[in-house]
Amino acid sequence: MRRIDALGKISDDPNCLARTFCSPAMRRANVLVGSWMREAGMAIRTDAIGNIIGHYPAVDPKPKIKNQKSKILLLGSHLDTVRDAGKFDGPLGVLIAIACVQQLNDSKIQLPFAIEVVGFADEEGVRYQSTYLGSKVLAGRFNLKDLKRVDADGIRMAEAIRSFGGNPNELANAKMDPARLLGYVEAHIEQGPVLEQKNLSVGVVTAIAGQTRMRLTFTGRADHAGTTPMNLRRDALCAAAEFISTVETFAGDRKRNEAGFGLVATVGEITALPGASNVIPGEVVLSLDARHAKDSGRQRAIATLKQKAIQIARRRNIKLSAEVVHHSPAVACDRHFSSLLTKAAACYQKQVPVLPSGAGHDAAAMAAITPVAMLFVRCKKGVSHHPNESVSEKDIRVAISVMNDFLQLLAQNA
Amino acid sequence: MRRIDALGKISDDPNCLARTFCSPAMRRANVLVGSWMREAGMAIRTDAIGNIIGHYPAVDPKPKIKNQKSKILLLGSHLDTVRDAGKFDGPLGVLIAIACVQQLNDSKIQLPFAIEVVGFADEEGVRYQSTYLGSKVLAGRFNLKDLKRVDADGIRMAEAIRSFGGNPNELANAKMDPARLLGYVEAHIEQGPVLEQKNLSVGVVTAIAGQTRMRLTFTGRADHAGTTPMNLRRDALCAAAEFISTVETFAGDRKRNEAGFGLVATVGEITALPGASNVIPGEVVLSLDARHAKDSGRQRAIATLKQKAIQIARRRNIKLSAEVVHHSPAVACDRHFSSLLTKAAACYQKQVPVLPSGAGHDAAAMAAITPVAMLFVRCKKGVSHHPNESVSEKDIRVAISVMNDFLQLLAQNA
Repeated sequence: MRRIDALGKISDDPNCLARTFCSPAMRRANVLVGSWMREAGMAIRTDAIGNIIGHYPAVDPKPKIKNQKSKILLLGSHLDTVRDAGKFDGPLGVLIAIACVQQLNDSKIQLPFAIEVVGFADEEGVRYQSTYLGSKVLAGRFNLKDLKRVDADGIRMAEAIRSFGGNPNELANAKMDPARLLGYVEAHIEQGPVLEQKNLSVGVVTAIAGQTRMRLTFTGRADHAGTTPMNLRRDALCAAAEFISTVETFAGDRKRNEAGFGLVATVGEITALPGASNVIPGEVVLSLDARHAKDSGRQRAIATLKQKAIQIARRRNIKLSAEVVHHSPAVACDRHFSSLLTKAAACYQKQVPVLPSGAGHDAAAMAAITPVAMLFVRCKKGVSHHPNESVSEKDIRVAISVMNDFLQLLAQNA
Repeated sequence: MRRIDALGKISDDPNCLARTFCSPAMRRANVLVGSWMREAGMAIRTDAIGNIIGHYPAVDPKPKIKNQKSKILLLGSHLDTVRDAGKFDGPLGVLIAIACVQQLNDSKIQLPFAIEVVGFADEEGVRYQSTYLGSKVLAGRFNLKDLKRVDADGIRMAEAIRSFGGNPNELANAKMDPARLLGYVEAHIEQGPVLEQKNLSVGVVTAIAGQTRMRLTFTGRADHAGTTPMNLRRDALCAAAEFISTVETFAGDRKRNEAGFGLVATVGEITALPGASNVIPGEVVLSLDARHAKDSGRQRAIATLKQKAIQIARRRNIKLSAEVVHHSPAVACDRHFSSLLTKAAACYQKQVPVLPSGAGHDAAAMAAITPVAMLFVRCKKGVSHHPNESVSEKDIRVAISVMNDFLQLLAQNA
């Protein structure tokens, strides 16, 4: 908790917590986190994009078979933040990992695998509007075109990496060797209200939900609100309202919400044109965000909702256009890791909920090369990306214990 | 139709029709309309605010009883327009009135009452955001505080009136004597689709609908669209959508729509905050515009809709605030006048629909001092306030005939 507070004071903005990719605050954060890693018995390095990595060796660093190196378990999360952030989103996962290694080191325990704790340099993507820069490098999924991106001050990403001490030419070589990895396990605040509602400290993530973001446009006819009788209207907002209610009902249907794999669907943006109190809306544009822990579930939901939108529009003599503006596939968590996390957590609370992650995480990028798992930690009122972000000391203690026990269980099963 | 075209060319803007209160175009319009009034045998005058008035004397200008002057029937509409206007909204009523007097004059007929045709100087209120300036002066309802209003160029209304040749100090004296008035009858385009849908040239207006405009704010909680399960949301937009559907269903219920007195209710503006595709809307502000030809009907509707909004909000644990931002009472048309208009129209079409006026008109202001009636003329697709505004020559001919016959019927019944 002291470390969370110390890290929470390292900001590029004196008035709020804001720590972006390759910024001066990020440099200070890496120095501080590096010192804690060293204290915990780790050898530290910073890779070509600025990820800080601490290495805690396996029990037997000498290869049993000639040239065979020990496997590595990756733990960690990201050290960058959004603007006006809370202290826990990201850093909590790095500090829990360091605390676990610290306990191993203090007890002079080494495991059959090495542990590397990673503090990723960019997950939020605030500076260059591009997420997972750090984990994409480790996963070998970094897109070199992104180096040409320019931040708000006109600084190219390549230049930012170089002045931070990284090396844009070495990004491709910074990839981890999948053959050496056991997996990646990340602790993170839930950023949602489920654990708080169940009054439990931690939960195990089933999958990082896939997401489809659509833009739907309902085009009716703008008419005079006073002179057009109700039965002669083609009100685009009434069509949109019917659709919004349909989305809510469809996603809220509990039968569709299998434990840990629920659908969430949200209309977050809406614009009605011309937008005058005395004119019937002729056009409404709205966003639809649908997420599900299984791609098949999400795709079925999107197809059904689109079909319902078509029916609503047709019945009302309204034109509909619908386009997908973004989609990302679901990332399933590793069953073996998750079952060990669940087993570990069961010692600390009466029930271990499994739940999907509606938000994206570094684990999503790491899943490209290695099995991943995630432990969610309860946060107050589900608030994140806000200074009010809050996690209790008790819950952090439980999370550290669960991760520690997980390491032991994995060591027995490895 | 030629006169409509000629008047439609008199604009302050070379690219579209725009003729606002006391503008140079309005001066030219008054000169032209005045010349037509004179041709029709009328004596013309311009009053203190710039209304042009043509007087056609009664059959016996000599008082039957000493000092008793003959009664006056007012006909007319407004000569100002919105920006980028059509040619018919306003001028049509003035030109139909002049055409009627022309026919009387050509036939050397005088009626037991004088006719005064008024071309009102301001109904749309574009220049000073204040409607009915012209008719309010005749009705003695002009608010002298309005003289201090400033237009977009910084010109005070008092100054505009003076430079137009009017006299701000004489506005109070420009009021018509109610004791001398028989009433005010206005022909106007419908600005709605009802007559076109019934395939009829004209209709008789039951009342100028009263209007209530409200602002409703639904306040829920902005949460992460990915991490907040459906059952833990307090989505302000879902509440608003349910309300919009309720408004549509309630106003669309045909039983509530007595012939000629229907309720219309519209949500024309909506804002969802924070307004991001990945955030559940925490607050939605929307407008509600409800109009009904009877005040009691409108008030009952508003009370019911407000109650329904409260129920929706309460069930969803959402805060609701609702405030009335504007309301204007309904203005009933005179039954005697309306029955004579209906009788006259029945000779020209198989059915004479009665319908409310959802939009406001000079008749609403004139009703303060004298009985009013209105004849609606079919317009293409219900379009108004747009260059596409269109009325057929046939329908104008019917409207002139109906107004002529109305005058004869009134003369018999006066």
